[in-house]
Amino acid sequence: MSTLASASDPGGDGGGDLRQSVDAALLHQLLQAALQYADCCREVIWQIRRQGIETDAKPDLSVVTNADLAAERAFRESVERDFPQMGIIGEELVASRPQAAYQWVIDPVDGTADFACGLPTWGSIIGLFFQGAPIVGVIDHPDLGIRVHAAHGLGAYRNNERIGLEENTSSRRALSGRIGLPSRSSFIRCNEDGDIFDILAHAHPDFRALRTCLNHTYAATGQLDAAVEWDANLWDLAATRIIVEEAGGRYVCVRERQQPGAGKLYCAVFGRPALVDRIAALLAAHV
Amino acid sequence: MSTLASASDPGGDGGGDLRQSVDAALLHQLLQAALQYADCCREVIWQIRRQGIETDAKPDLSVVTNADLAAERAFRESVERDFPQMGIIGEELVASRPQAAYQWVIDPVDGTADFACGLPTWGSIIGLFFQGAPIVGVIDHPDLGIRVHAAHGLGAYRNNERIGLEENTSSRRALSGRIGLPSRSSFIRCNEDGDIFDILAHAHPDFRALRTCLNHTYAATGQLDAAVEWDANLWDLAATRIIVEEAGGRYVCVRERQQPGAGKLYCAVFGRPALVDRIAALLAAHV
Repeated sequence: MSTLASASDPGGDGGGDLRQSVDAALLHQLLQAALQYADCCREVIWQIRRQGIETDAKPDLSVVTNADLAAERAFRESVERDFPQMGIIGEELVASRPQAAYQWVIDPVDGTADFACGLPTWGSIIGLFFQGAPIVGVIDHPDLGIRVHAAHGLGAYRNNERIGLEENTSSRRALSGRIGLPSRSSFIRCNEDGDIFDILAHAHPDFRALRTCLNHTYAATGQLDAAVEWDANLWDLAATRIIVEEAGGRYVCVRERQQPGAGKLYCAVFGRPALVDRIAALLAAHV
Repeated sequence: MSTLASASDPGGDGGGDLRQSVDAALLHQLLQAALQYADCCREVIWQIRRQGIETDAKPDLSVVTNADLAAERAFRESVERDFPQMGIIGEELVASRPQAAYQWVIDPVDGTADFACGLPTWGSIIGLFFQGAPIVGVIDHPDLGIRVHAAHGLGAYRNNERIGLEENTSSRRALSGRIGLPSRSSFIRCNEDGDIFDILAHAHPDFRALRTCLNHTYAATGQLDAAVEWDANLWDLAATRIIVEEAGGRYVCVRERQQPGAGKLYCAVFGRPALVDRIAALLAAHV
């Protein structure tokens, strides 16, 4: 497996042992940098919004704005300045140094359509991988005042308070099994028929569909019991695994594959372990 | 049609002309009262949360908390004090003065399960009907800092700024057709097979499912283009029609019926007029 294939494999095993070789002081430095980059993205995005959001359609008809581009550029400049030997993979611009052992991954505005329409549900995603294994992750929701972050072995946090996913006890039974799904559009993105969405919606009719990484954040904090992501790009999931696992949850990649024109796409389920296992088993019969 | 049937008919024609007979000074007074009651609910709910949320399951297995009950009690006491001749219909307690011409309707915590799990998506709904026609509506989302309100002939507001729903122009085309749906559970609530959810999800695969009146708020502000509510109770929709219509949008009731054990249930679509008409036509073929 090449370094890039490994670096772009947030759903794989990721060589957990290799992460032990990351110096503890460096890991702290990288986490602090990731948090500062999230601050920077937040400021850039809010500044652009004050000046006026300009919307454009990408070739795949998804939406991009001047805020997405400005935030990704600011992030790249910061990484180039602080860690010039490290690689950068972002949603909007071409990858830098794809062979580097450390790969920063960014989705500056996940949920761009929500952002452009004034919904507060969008988020900025920053992840860092070492030899393909996730070591730092930040998901920031500036309009909601929510940020979750984690680093390998250092725990997961929501607004700087430690978070932990326990299995539901009987007293929480009436509130258990609350899952977040992408909407049906994610399931038909690659010309599939959407049957898997229908199966999930039938099995978990009480689902939420927030349409952005806010699903991931809530699955990491336990406000949802689990979430599913379907045919997502690397940057969509760049922070999720490390945050969920450091919170004591489980992350299962149920499918990954190359899709012409879209790159490598991942399907994953994550959250409280028992429910994740149940959903992963349901999906395994259909992928 | 009895007064109560009329008062509990937010989806009906509602005798718009009758609303002209409401004195303008009284209407202003009623609107100010509704906004104060929303403030009061917010304080009661936040106070209960600080003290500790206690969760219980209702006979239909939905969730109720001590905050729902305390907020509805506080609301009822305020109405009894200010307008002792008016009726009150709430989600949690029995109706008062069902024959009165003015009927206050409250859902103190819409999205109780979200509230209990710490999601900010819940809202308090307050509506006032005169002879069955909606004249005042407030939807308050304390954890999001969003409030929408309207009164008959006085316009609709989001955080005290006037809102207006224009049809999408070509420049917004890439962002148009964003709809909010209930999750599939609403469509199978009354032992139906959920086909209507599947039809909507196939026709609008890019939907959001926020699961609460936040869908209504976003449809009124144009952050969603339309939203659907299915087999909802009177209190779920108590503020929606007046707010959407005063914002220049359209509200269509596509079905209403008595359901044993659940009372009268309403199915409605609301938001930008052209999209509402399109969805209503799709639904009309199936209800």
